[in-house]
Amino acid sequence: MIGSFRCELVDDPELLAAARLTRPDLDADEVAARAAWSVLVEPGDGVAGALIQALGAAEALRTAFGELSLGQPGVVPARALNEALARWRPRAHPRAVRDALLAARNVGARLLLPGDELWPAGLSDLDAHQPVLLWARGDADVLRASTAAAIVGARAATSYGEGIAADIAGDLATGGALVVSGGAYGIDGAAHRAALGAGGTTAAYLAGGVDRAYPIGHQPLFDRIRQSGVVLSEVPCGSAPTKWRFLARNRLIAAASLATVVVEAGWRSGALNTAGHASSLGRPLGAVPGPVTSAASAGCHRLLREFDAVCVTSAQDVRELWGERDASCAASPPPDHDRTRMLDAMSMRTPLEPADIARRSGLSVERTRSLLGLMALDGVVAQRDHGWVRRE
Amino acid sequence: MIGSFRCELVDDPELLAAARLTRPDLDADEVAARAAWSVLVEPGDGVAGALIQALGAAEALRTAFGELSLGQPGVVPARALNEALARWRPRAHPRAVRDALLAARNVGARLLLPGDELWPAGLSDLDAHQPVLLWARGDADVLRASTAAAIVGARAATSYGEGIAADIAGDLATGGALVVSGGAYGIDGAAHRAALGAGGTTAAYLAGGVDRAYPIGHQPLFDRIRQSGVVLSEVPCGSAPTKWRFLARNRLIAAASLATVVVEAGWRSGALNTAGHASSLGRPLGAVPGPVTSAASAGCHRLLREFDAVCVTSAQDVRELWGERDASCAASPPPDHDRTRMLDAMSMRTPLEPADIARRSGLSVERTRSLLGLMALDGVVAQRDHGWVRRE
Repeated sequence: MIGSFRCELVDDPELLAAARLTRPDLDADEVAARAAWSVLVEPGDGVAGALIQALGAAEALRTAFGELSLGQPGVVPARALNEALARWRPRAHPRAVRDALLAARNVGARLLLPGDELWPAGLSDLDAHQPVLLWARGDADVLRASTAAAIVGARAATSYGEGIAADIAGDLATGGALVVSGGAYGIDGAAHRAALGAGGTTAAYLAGGVDRAYPIGHQPLFDRIRQSGVVLSEVPCGSAPTKWRFLARNRLIAAASLATVVVEAGWRSGALNTAGHASSLGRPLGAVPGPVTSAASAGCHRLLREFDAVCVTSAQDVRELWGERDASCAASPPPDHDRTRMLDAMSMRTPLEPADIARRSGLSVERTRSLLGLMALDGVVAQRDHGWVRRE
Repeated sequence: MIGSFRCELVDDPELLAAARLTRPDLDADEVAARAAWSVLVEPGDGVAGALIQALGAAEALRTAFGELSLGQPGVVPARALNEALARWRPRAHPRAVRDALLAARNVGARLLLPGDELWPAGLSDLDAHQPVLLWARGDADVLRASTAAAIVGARAATSYGEGIAADIAGDLATGGALVVSGGAYGIDGAAHRAALGAGGTTAAYLAGGVDRAYPIGHQPLFDRIRQSGVVLSEVPCGSAPTKWRFLARNRLIAAASLATVVVEAGWRSGALNTAGHASSLGRPLGAVPGPVTSAASAGCHRLLREFDAVCVTSAQDVRELWGERDASCAASPPPDHDRTRMLDAMSMRTPLEPADIARRSGLSVERTRSLLGLMALDGVVAQRDHGWVRRE
């Protein structure tokens, strides 16, 4: 803490006490500061991200809101900082931060910070747009999985799409991968359910607070996910799942996963936004095709066509997105054109002399004779009294 | 003709007379020689192709079969030429060539030679594997079309696949493109029929002679194609459609078209062979996706996944394969994130003050006020007695 740069958003004793209760293993100053940032900003606020990266969460707060704030021209241009302060000030109340921590505690939400062992490593690729923290309900240990795949798609899915999502997610989960999705109706729900059904693990990133079930009809699903998976959000408990937060949430799904697969999506589906995040992060992107007559697959075909997504038809195809090869897949030998032409020229009933076969196949008599010998060894041709026949 | 290099395969008077009858507009020597080569070789014979490219069809024959044949070490290695001669000799009978010309005449087949005005320009990309000629029945003038698209696929097609093939081929044909295919059951037939049904043109490249309907059940279709399209083959009348000739025929379909589209194909479908030819010729390759649960689409998905085929869902997608843009397709404006966040924060029923909206949206009060003004002009928000509401 730098001298007189006192800021009530971090230096409030009640707030620090609440922070200590939430994560007794960490520095209360850091926990309180990150909780404060999560209340102050909308997801993905790059100015906050840049300040936190440069100064740490607590110093960034003191710099922005401290009694003797001098600004940080080296980190963020003065004008951008002033605009950001104008955004943040309406929310800058220590009580709001304390309430967020207490609300999390009330629902048993754990607070994950960047640098934590369980922090999804991929999120750091978001750079200044990384979340300041994650509020997590359930078994955050599932985040240790060495592979994570995002299976996302349309809410207005068809039974075809939900079936494929379930097949792929179930297979991936059985193989030990964490199935990441957004908890929505349709494809997301099918993916979460199949992962749970397979005895695997799943993570749902929500657009609103983890204390709210959205959609409300998925309350039982979220309850199940918390048993053998985790429900995560970067916005504090009580936050509504706004349209903006859905868009911002999508970047988390993409960043937290080795690959993103869109199973079904309309032409303008939100799942394409997740796909866009995956692409811009350099993550492999897969799309499951469907009938071109199905509006629910139009977005997937668009991804295949315009965004260079990889065509995915199975869990194995997904594993190959991150480089796992299928050991059972060996190269087949190249076809032998002369053999094809020989067999074309032969009959299964009428024996033919080598000279005949040569003329009909367009091969030389010598080549015909030598191939007949080799192919007889393989059992595909046989010699009869008056010539040769094919046997298959 | 070079001195004593006389060869009965070209210098036979009856043969030359038959050649003159067939194409009176051309040099009989050249016509007879190309007819002879078409009888001698199996499709795609590279040694014959290299000799013909270097010496012309007639001189190539005299060099290979002339009384004083000396070989052409500069064109083809001696060993390759000797092996080729051993292949060709069993078929080297002037009568066979004469019969081929007469059989063609009997069914009204026209003989097309490289360099002819109607010769499909793309075939020259096959280089030494270009056909030595084409036997054509029907209206060869349709080959003048400035655009040609190959629409190919499985014989064991589904009604889904045949429907899509028909939609795409009909649309392309209506736009003036020549629809090229292989005359098989399933996708090929659907493509030909739709082109004819749309009042357009179509070309069927056959693996056997143009005097034979293969499959026989497509005899009525071939009859119709000859009315407003053309049936083509590089093998002489009477030739059986062998497996080798199917594989070789596929290269013609790919080479004669600006782009090749596979509509449905099993995992090992022959249509993938056509696709492979298109790729190796540097022609754009499209594949129509289908349900991943459909074995009839497995080959298409393989093309999308392993061979970098473009996902095709409509005729417009096919036209874009050769660079035609859709004029009606304009870029949509980028989304305005602040507006999204503002609307997220507002209610349609409960008016909110700008300070409230600012806090809820995470925007500054100033930005909120100025956006409210702009959005009111667009009619998406409105001012009430006690604040602002959203109107949609």
